[in-house]
Amino acid sequence: MNNNDDQNHTLPKDHPRYLSLRYRHKIIEGMKNLIVAEAGLIAHGRGECFDYILGEKTNLAAKKAIKAAVALLLLAKHPIISVNGNVAALCPNELVELSNKLNVPLELNLFYRKEGRIEAIKNMLESAGAKNLLGIDETSMVQIEELSSNRRNVDPKGIKIADVVFVPLEDGDRSEALKKTGKKVIAVDLNPISRTSIWADITIVDNIVRVLPEMITILDDLKNLKEDQLLEILNNFNNKKNIQNVLDLIKDYIDAQKEEAFKILP
Amino acid sequence: MNNNDDQNHTLPKDHPRYLSLRYRHKIIEGMKNLIVAEAGLIAHGRGECFDYILGEKTNLAAKKAIKAAVALLLLAKHPIISVNGNVAALCPNELVELSNKLNVPLELNLFYRKEGRIEAIKNMLESAGAKNLLGIDETSMVQIEELSSNRRNVDPKGIKIADVVFVPLEDGDRSEALKKTGKKVIAVDLNPISRTSIWADITIVDNIVRVLPEMITILDDLKNLKEDQLLEILNNFNNKKNIQNVLDLIKDYIDAQKEEAFKILP
Repeated sequence: MNNNDDQNHTLPKDHPRYLSLRYRHKIIEGMKNLIVAEAGLIAHGRGECFDYILGEKTNLAAKKAIKAAVALLLLAKHPIISVNGNVAALCPNELVELSNKLNVPLELNLFYRKEGRIEAIKNMLESAGAKNLLGIDETSMVQIEELSSNRRNVDPKGIKIADVVFVPLEDGDRSEALKKTGKKVIAVDLNPISRTSIWADITIVDNIVRVLPEMITILDDLKNLKEDQLLEILNNFNNKKNIQNVLDLIKDYIDAQKEEAFKILP
Repeated sequence: MNNNDDQNHTLPKDHPRYLSLRYRHKIIEGMKNLIVAEAGLIAHGRGECFDYILGEKTNLAAKKAIKAAVALLLLAKHPIISVNGNVAALCPNELVELSNKLNVPLELNLFYRKEGRIEAIKNMLESAGAKNLLGIDETSMVQIEELSSNRRNVDPKGIKIADVVFVPLEDGDRSEALKKTGKKVIAVDLNPISRTSIWADITIVDNIVRVLPEMITILDDLKNLKEDQLLEILNNFNNKKNIQNVLDLIKDYIDAQKEEAFKILP
């Protein structure tokens, strides 16, 4: 741990990338505590980059997708929130708060298995107040054939029977496979044109550390709506169009940077 | 090491991201061998993302920058190649080949110090045939005041007296500091608008695993040119304009993806 402490001490608080570096530190700590896989660090870096060219804020397209996502979760018969190491390391409290407020269970679904990893994530989430945690008992798992890798092992009370799967962070081609089993998929992915983003029914292109608090806020607004009002929100949402709007935002950002970026020069 | 082997076995060769995953594996192995810092994994992920939106190929702007970079290295009085953990892990052979062919020494210049790390990188580069390795003997280092962090400790025979510093991969605000000491900086950075990219005299926006082989090829073309011919190449190169051209390429790529990305859907 010493080495990492050293790393942190070299980062002054007025560093222009301080917030980003703080979450980076959480991910590195997560790896040391077995919660995050090594490849999860690289995935985090990819996210950082896309967040950067999206201006590191929740844009209007993301807000629309978040609203539709909450409506779909409220309408679902058997919704489930799929949890991986990165989301558990980055925002365990917000993840648990959303799960509890929605009354939707969390299911651990890991690509990389390693001794002690499930236990570490379980402890992290239970410390944050998780009450309904699935995907823990490996002996009771069932398989979903459409999924490859370790992810095919799912909980019979969770992803297996779910009609709506919320995938806060994704690291593979799972949204395609879940779609092919007839489930609806809500994804959070900073890459707007990943296979995950394209295949999902609702794609939230934003940083998970901003998305979960926003979902909790929106849930307070929507939880008392009637079914037909929630359906109207869903029907007014077009995922493809929304992703295309995100791509336009990236283009606008890059255009602005063509002169702006050089203003740091003397 | 077992865990990482497991990770690799789960990646089929026909995976659409196979090449990218192979380099990712090199970086993860590098971390286990002390060559790469934990934060180096995240930096690698950021690079992956920018490479992705540049179409994962060496574009014309990068080729122009590579040519100017080789010309500047040939014209320099005291050129130096600065080495960090990621470049040593990703392409040690090409790095050493370029150093030997140019007759320019390699200098280790690390942000994160850790016991055994310098030794690990030294061994990696010497196995690849490195003959002239600086920045190894910490007792003989001198400081450059303009630089912050561990990077301020430099070799009196290398970066300290250099007129041209080639920084194949950068993880801080060093190009600004080096510029302020009057040195010329050549940077390879997949982020075209990082502070490194903006401050450098010559910014190569491309993946290091493609840049080094291209530099070796270009070196064969340029090594017999006269000084005024090399100067002409340099004078015809405009770094700001070149970076702006890269930004236009990214915009073009994103535009193309607005429909293209959705073609994977049935």
